[in-house]
Amino acid sequence: MTGTERQDLGLFTDLYQLTMLDAYLQEGMQDDAVFTLFVRRLPNERKFLLAAGLDPLLETIENLSFSDDDLRYLKEQNFSQQLIDYLRDFEFTGQVRALPEGTVFFENEPIVEIKAPLPQAQLIETLVMNQIHLQTLLASKGARVAHAAEKRPVLDFGARRVHGIDAGKKGSRALYLSGIAATSNMLAARTYGLPVAGTMAHSYIQAHDSEYQALKNFTQVFPETVLLVDTIDTLKGVEKVIQLANELGDDFKVKGIRLDSGDLGDLAVKARKLLDEHNLHHLEIIASGGLDEHKIAQLIADRAPIDGFGVGTGMGVSDDAAALDMAYKLVEYAGKGRLKLSSGKPVLPGEKQVFRESGDNFRRDTIARAEEQLPGEPLLKKVMQSGKRLPSHQRDIEEIRQYAQQQLNKLPEYVSSISSKEKSYPIEISDKLASYQKEITEHLKQEG
Amino acid sequence: MTGTERQDLGLFTDLYQLTMLDAYLQEGMQDDAVFTLFVRRLPNERKFLLAAGLDPLLETIENLSFSDDDLRYLKEQNFSQQLIDYLRDFEFTGQVRALPEGTVFFENEPIVEIKAPLPQAQLIETLVMNQIHLQTLLASKGARVAHAAEKRPVLDFGARRVHGIDAGKKGSRALYLSGIAATSNMLAARTYGLPVAGTMAHSYIQAHDSEYQALKNFTQVFPETVLLVDTIDTLKGVEKVIQLANELGDDFKVKGIRLDSGDLGDLAVKARKLLDEHNLHHLEIIASGGLDEHKIAQLIADRAPIDGFGVGTGMGVSDDAAALDMAYKLVEYAGKGRLKLSSGKPVLPGEKQVFRESGDNFRRDTIARAEEQLPGEPLLKKVMQSGKRLPSHQRDIEEIRQYAQQQLNKLPEYVSSISSKEKSYPIEISDKLASYQKEITEHLKQEG
Repeated sequence: MTGTERQDLGLFTDLYQLTMLDAYLQEGMQDDAVFTLFVRRLPNERKFLLAAGLDPLLETIENLSFSDDDLRYLKEQNFSQQLIDYLRDFEFTGQVRALPEGTVFFENEPIVEIKAPLPQAQLIETLVMNQIHLQTLLASKGARVAHAAEKRPVLDFGARRVHGIDAGKKGSRALYLSGIAATSNMLAARTYGLPVAGTMAHSYIQAHDSEYQALKNFTQVFPETVLLVDTIDTLKGVEKVIQLANELGDDFKVKGIRLDSGDLGDLAVKARKLLDEHNLHHLEIIASGGLDEHKIAQLIADRAPIDGFGVGTGMGVSDDAAALDMAYKLVEYAGKGRLKLSSGKPVLPGEKQVFRESGDNFRRDTIARAEEQLPGEPLLKKVMQSGKRLPSHQRDIEEIRQYAQQQLNKLPEYVSSISSKEKSYPIEISDKLASYQKEITEHLKQEG
Repeated sequence: MTGTERQDLGLFTDLYQLTMLDAYLQEGMQDDAVFTLFVRRLPNERKFLLAAGLDPLLETIENLSFSDDDLRYLKEQNFSQQLIDYLRDFEFTGQVRALPEGTVFFENEPIVEIKAPLPQAQLIETLVMNQIHLQTLLASKGARVAHAAEKRPVLDFGARRVHGIDAGKKGSRALYLSGIAATSNMLAARTYGLPVAGTMAHSYIQAHDSEYQALKNFTQVFPETVLLVDTIDTLKGVEKVIQLANELGDDFKVKGIRLDSGDLGDLAVKARKLLDEHNLHHLEIIASGGLDEHKIAQLIADRAPIDGFGVGTGMGVSDDAAALDMAYKLVEYAGKGRLKLSSGKPVLPGEKQVFRESGDNFRRDTIARAEEQLPGEPLLKKVMQSGKRLPSHQRDIEEIRQYAQQQLNKLPEYVSSISSKEKSYPIEISDKLASYQKEITEHLKQEG
């Protein structure tokens, strides 16, 4: 287990999963089902997504259980004794095939395919979607922000306004694997072994009667810090840092300054000039305050002398696209392909594979039936068998981050660009999968 | 303690809170500080906010602690032994004044004011903001959705795409107190005693070889259910419900049908007509699928015969405004008012009170110094003293929900309307507070 996460999340499910389970048990419907997790349409602001959240999810599923309190609660809700008994002994025994974390993917491509007895696969729907949705959403946003920063480090300062504790922890993990350099969130860092970053807030300066004294005192405790200079007047703050450098001489070990308000580009130019005039060339300038990928790209296009960025809320809640149109759909039961025809929401039936053709860059993907052999790399890997994670697919967060970087580096420029105007990456459906879908649709229409 | 929430969330903080703490301890700066939590500017899509999250937050603060693992981790990060010892014995001993949950508020108004020794009040910043931000964000969204539904029940179906487990639990609580009728999230319902709702998913229908058989089987396990009818063809699905009613006769106890795709208004009219033609007037029509307050308002304006709404993602992530510009700022230390001048981010110094003048509706608010006595109701109440919650301010979720409803009912129409075009609610700053702010600003400018 990583960190303090409790695994009795069995009850993190929707009421209807349990009513359906109760019905399945009473009908004796426990054959194998296959569910596919995918994103139906990408948000307008995204041209690719980055898969994330799988490893922590599998760990949770491996240990999924119901507490006595949970079972008592369900009894009070008038569920059958058969269901209560089933959940008391619950153990996930299924197979999971999935895109490894850090894989780039597109609309309609399976992210996770779960094959398990129907009640098991149904029960975990809410948890699977919630967890993969959260981390994929934030990794996909983080990749854009890191891309815009063009190799300059981006620090995740979002803990205070992301949506709750779990998003704070797992979101910081997702952002790190997407290319963000470090997090300010101590619990996330401890839980997932992430690098941490951060220095001081305005309150520290404010609590002192003199800004100069505050800066000086802080460097005595943390000599190699980054000093926040905008509490009263940014450029006067920079002058105080210079004064401090003069006073401390060789004892001045400060690494940089942080600007957190105002016209960041203009202030960075002026601060850089002041610092350079006093031979403080090595002091870096970190900028923060309402930043996102577009503002960062603009600052860089304007050649603002900024060495790193602190990015909080906009990235941490993915504010330009705060949710993905993600779905977890039954595609096979008892050996028969399944779909639904609900208008505007097509489903690809059966177990599937995605084949990706590449040269220097990714060229095109084909979604196919699982047993097909098509040109390109098959992207879905078996990661869990009989309810246990396969050790061959367990990687530490640094390996995942490197893999994600390799994936992102292979995106064609028209996909990786943060502008949203260009064409989409080509996704095809194999002939066999298309005719399988057609066959089942015809059958359903006759039945309907 | 409510539910399974572990309280060792001490480490849910930003790195810089701990570096500042380390410095405060070494400087001997442990006098009382006052921090104010407020929202600087409302999102364009909001004309009021609904305070939420206080009671679970206070419970967490009352029990805040650091585990041995946490302390070991901090030691590895090279924090001082003085800080580690301080955190080992950490106990919050401060005072909290706050808007009771369910209070309507506006920009710059204090939501929470915390008075405690500086290191304590600094440490909890990240947690306080994260938790009040999440629940206030979602309660404010939920109030709009419930308002749009004009007394028809709205069901919270968001668990699968809200941002993580904590957002799933506490978000459902926030939505319920804002006027949403029930949640599908079992863990949230058990933890906070919320009503639950939900029936069946498409996968249940799909797993059966015949839609009719699926509907029939489900009613045998849950006779008083709501049947989902759009898996293959919505109106043919309705005809199957009618066929089932004919077959079962007096044993037909089904309460309603659910539409989840297509043109919901048009389908509701046609489904209502079909049901009524077969004397199934008592069957309710529930609509779901990509709904938000604007779509619900449009359906109601079009007189769609819909009796209740299921709303998921858009409400659960507050997708039109996924974050609030919330801040937690030092406003007093060691008896002296404090602020910062960072451009565009003004702060109101010192302990404050909000006085609200009302007739039938709320008329205007005045933000004042805490010791002032002005016309209107003082909104901030003392809820924690010496680190312990005051029992007089502990209310159960039903009381909070009723109070929120009373608050929402007193909003003038131009504020409660979900359209975003009209004028803002009037907020004034008292003369005394304005001159106090001016005085401290002048002083800071001289110092700077």
